Amino acid sequence: MKRWLQTGATLLFGAGLGASVSRLPSIRRRQEEEEGADLLSRIPVLPVPTVQASELTMSPGGSAVVMKYGFPSLANIKTRESYITSYDPRTRTASWVIERLNPTSLNGPSDRKYCDFKEDDSVHEFHRATNADYRGSGFDRGHLAAAANHKWSQKAMADTFYLSNVAPQNPHLNQKTWNNLEKLCRSLTKRYLNVYVCTGPLYLPRQEADGKLYVRYQVIGQNHVAVPTHFFKVLILEQTDGRGVELRSYVLPNEPIDERVPLERFLVPIEMIERASGLLFVPNIMKRTSSLQAITNR
Amino acid sequence: MKRWLQTGATLLFGAGLGASVSRLPSIRRRQEEEEGADLLSRIPVLPVPTVQASELTMSPGGSAVVMKYGFPSLANIKTRESYITSYDPRTRTASWVIERLNPTSLNGPSDRKYCDFKEDDSVHEFHRATNADYRGSGFDRGHLAAAANHKWSQKAMADTFYLSNVAPQNPHLNQKTWNNLEKLCRSLTKRYLNVYVCTGPLYLPRQEADGKLYVRYQVIGQNHVAVPTHFFKVLILEQTDGRGVELRSYVLPNEPIDERVPLERFLVPIEMIERASGLLFVPNIMKRTSSLQAITNR
Repeated sequence: MKRWLQTGATLLFGAGLGASVSRLPSIRRRQEEEEGADLLSRIPVLPVPTVQASELTMSPGGSAVVMKYGFPSLANIKTRESYITSYDPRTRTASWVIERLNPTSLNGPSDRKYCDFKEDDSVHEFHRATNADYRGSGFDRGHLAAAANHKWSQKAMADTFYLSNVAPQNPHLNQKTWNNLEKLCRSLTKRYLNVYVCTGPLYLPRQEADGKLYVRYQVIGQNHVAVPTHFFKVLILEQTDGRGVELRSYVLPNEPIDERVPLERFLVPIEMIERASGLLFVPNIMKRTSSLQAITNR
Repeated sequence: MKRWLQTGATLLFGAGLGASVSRLPSIRRRQEEEEGADLLSRIPVLPVPTVQASELTMSPGGSAVVMKYGFPSLANIKTRESYITSYDPRTRTASWVIERLNPTSLNGPSDRKYCDFKEDDSVHEFHRATNADYRGSGFDRGHLAAAANHKWSQKAMADTFYLSNVAPQNPHLNQKTWNNLEKLCRSLTKRYLNVYVCTGPLYLPRQEADGKLYVRYQVIGQNHVAVPTHFFKVLILEQTDGRGVELRSYVLPNEPIDERVPLERFLVPIEMIERASGLLFVPNIMKRTSSLQAITNR
């Protein structure tokens, strides 16, 4: 329990943590959308092949449908069978990874025994993590999009083993509380139409003895892969009856966590993640729904 | 001199610093270019208004010509009168800023007494630095693209005062050795046709007492503006007689530096900056010239 209290103290140093979710912005950017439509009307349009609805739903967790609630950022986007990600070449890991879970994506014959962690050769060799970087580091290769979320396709599961979908994670966290959070995401597919999960690293500042705030994180291996101080998961829960979406946002420290601490204790206001990560979630979600309910622990 | 030795030790922890510039890649991506050309040939081309050469040269340091040697990254690009920049919303400062210097851009009636540092309201308020963040921090608001490089236009000079073109900089460094490096950039316009300058922050790891490598940097103000551990300047020097370009890349620690230390001591192989920053310079430059000579101190 002592460790949890330390964690709470760490989180307190996130900027604007005290801000209330009542500050969720109203529908902005409507004007931008309209300007975009206007621009398109002035550009000649080429006929494109028609796509049947059945084709669009062929990939249950596939990339075509993953981004319904927008892109948290637009840098270095990579599209994979099971997720879409934004890569950060400076830290050698993703800024975020988004996947969509539902009963169809969770079930299938795929088996992780046929999967191996692999370098992402779409990333320049100067900015790419390798298996050797992790060896002997004391850190697990922690999946961001989880392998068990994509049993629907062996290729989709295999794609989660790119090291660009991985970050150095404390082994106890990876195997215990983080695993429980991944299970929670899957179990929520029983109550919601779709569960969109966005996962990423955080590098949070903390106060040091001189009273000033510092970001401090380890880097491992020849390629200096950054070890996040924390991880976030943002869950966008789509209700079955068109009543809009619920939002749950979690931040966990990259250290052992007693499994008896309930996961609800790691809920934070989405604004805390938006400020610390440099990403934006709420403006994109508000373009797609008029009803957004943020679930917090307060 | 002792301080300089410490600096050298810090730099040693940059990945691949020992790599030789002889590893500069040969002309790669030729294939990509050809594929791009092939794709374009299949897309109908609309006539565009012709542009007179005189129009293209109206802005001597302007954005239309700044990117001749490519974009080091493609995230959050902003075009200003005097420079082009890539913004990093997580650190609240730029990833890089590129400007072009020549005798025309350096001369003019503009005066910095009419300029004030200002928030960049093109950046979301969660990810934006403010003047209040710097107040009482002990750090200068250090220009990345320097104000004195853009006397050709009051607007161009004013644009260098956006806080997105600024990073927290040690005052002694800003006013002494960094200022000398900026003067060197300007003086090189006498010997070269154009001097392209790319400037940005670095967050370099160093070994701590436990033998492991850590990145550690302060953040200041309510918005947690990151204080870089180092700064880089990459100079692309265009020769007057079409003999190609020379490359000089500098890394300076964000701390006081004795002005007697010659600037040549801060030259590093470009690969060190490419690895540490997550940016790429050489592949882009090689698309534009067949002769690239890297100037180092070795």
